[in-house]
Amino acid sequence: LLVVAYDGTNYAGWQIQVNQPTIQSTLELALSKLCPDPVTVIGSGRTDSGVHAIGQVARCCLPSWRASPEALRAAINSHLPRDIAITGIREVPETFHPIRDCLGKRYRYQLQLGGAHDPFLYRYCWHLTQRLDLDSMRQGAALLVGRHDFAGFQATGSERKTTVRDVRELSIVVERESMAHGDFVAIEIEANGFLYNMVRNIVGTLVEVGRRKQAPEWVQRVLVSKNRMLAGPTAPAHGLLLQRVDYPD
Amino acid sequence: LLVVAYDGTNYAGWQIQVNQPTIQSTLELALSKLCPDPVTVIGSGRTDSGVHAIGQVARCCLPSWRASPEALRAAINSHLPRDIAITGIREVPETFHPIRDCLGKRYRYQLQLGGAHDPFLYRYCWHLTQRLDLDSMRQGAALLVGRHDFAGFQATGSERKTTVRDVRELSIVVERESMAHGDFVAIEIEANGFLYNMVRNIVGTLVEVGRRKQAPEWVQRVLVSKNRMLAGPTAPAHGLLLQRVDYPD
Repeated sequence: LLVVAYDGTNYAGWQIQVNQPTIQSTLELALSKLCPDPVTVIGSGRTDSGVHAIGQVARCCLPSWRASPEALRAAINSHLPRDIAITGIREVPETFHPIRDCLGKRYRYQLQLGGAHDPFLYRYCWHLTQRLDLDSMRQGAALLVGRHDFAGFQATGSERKTTVRDVRELSIVVERESMAHGDFVAIEIEANGFLYNMVRNIVGTLVEVGRRKQAPEWVQRVLVSKNRMLAGPTAPAHGLLLQRVDYPD
Repeated sequence: LLVVAYDGTNYAGWQIQVNQPTIQSTLELALSKLCPDPVTVIGSGRTDSGVHAIGQVARCCLPSWRASPEALRAAINSHLPRDIAITGIREVPETFHPIRDCLGKRYRYQLQLGGAHDPFLYRYCWHLTQRLDLDSMRQGAALLVGRHDFAGFQATGSERKTTVRDVRELSIVVERESMAHGDFVAIEIEANGFLYNMVRNIVGTLVEVGRRKQAPEWVQRVLVSKNRMLAGPTAPAHGLLLQRVDYPD
């Protein structure tokens, strides 16, 4: 089991694609330099182009590796570009599957509100020139917590067996107030699983409320409608970080 | 007076150079879009290629600008790339000169010690694979505080009227300890002025002490010798940030 952190700015997302650098293909390339066997890396899920991760989880099988996991971690890191790093490593039973065994995930969406763009953080947050009504956003967010059918927040055209998910937490936290760069606000969301684009669609919807274009109760109407066309726009990828993936211990 | 923040990664330093993007030329280009007059930006000093700034100070003269300074700030920012931002603006007397009137500067040098490289911070810190003896570094640093001739820490070949500088503070602070990414350590240094490469040479010298290649007292010998050849190597540019420039109020 690998815990992987990456700055997704320069990658076309997690999953292998023809002629484009992806996190998965870069990891497999680094591993191929360490092992004679062909190596496949399976992630807990795809992240989109430009999305970052602090604690993505992946699995790979290296039957011929003889040294310790820690030595393997250092060896992989030495073959990775500096915007991807293995931050944790652990031996797990061969039956472990990062998608099937996943109990839940936690994402974080970062906003910068007002002020000048921050030259050190613009890659990792969505910069809006105006302040937002955070209290209204929190009222709207509360309506999404719990077990609901999130079809209205799923990218159109995606197919899943069920669109019911259990959102365990959805909080909006002011992390830093700055004269020069405005406020940094994080939207943290934890659920047993996420539909395609679900976090970015929830954020885009809450921002509509924060801009006072919609009332907080409108979030409930989008949810009940199960109609993606009613929700707000999809928030940009570069504000999104996959924070953690949980498994039974 | 402009307060300028920048990520120096993609620039050949502050000062205008032929055929290379610099902070100064990028600022002048942004200003030229707002004013018919030719605009010259004068900084408090050059920063080298790859060095960052949180609070660089510069001056420019825009006789034809009619709106408020705050409106000017927003207008300049809208013409700047996202790795440069004006974070403060103020009208000052025409006699103000950012180099002559400067009372002092504060720099910060960031180190990451041990652990895997951090995909979100590698642009802004020097990553060393081993831990350092911070107590010995602090002993060595203490020997540099005060008014001394820093010729031993100046880049060879540079010419200054005097190489005496007053170092008011030189502290070594552990900012964050992390299992995955090791320790983040900041070396903060404030002085009435700096010689060319002085901070990076001091850091390189203190790191030699931290690696136990030299004793803390060796720092004193380098200082007294006034001989650059005795000091440690120049630390890489990308760990260095110009934090603040001070003027009489």
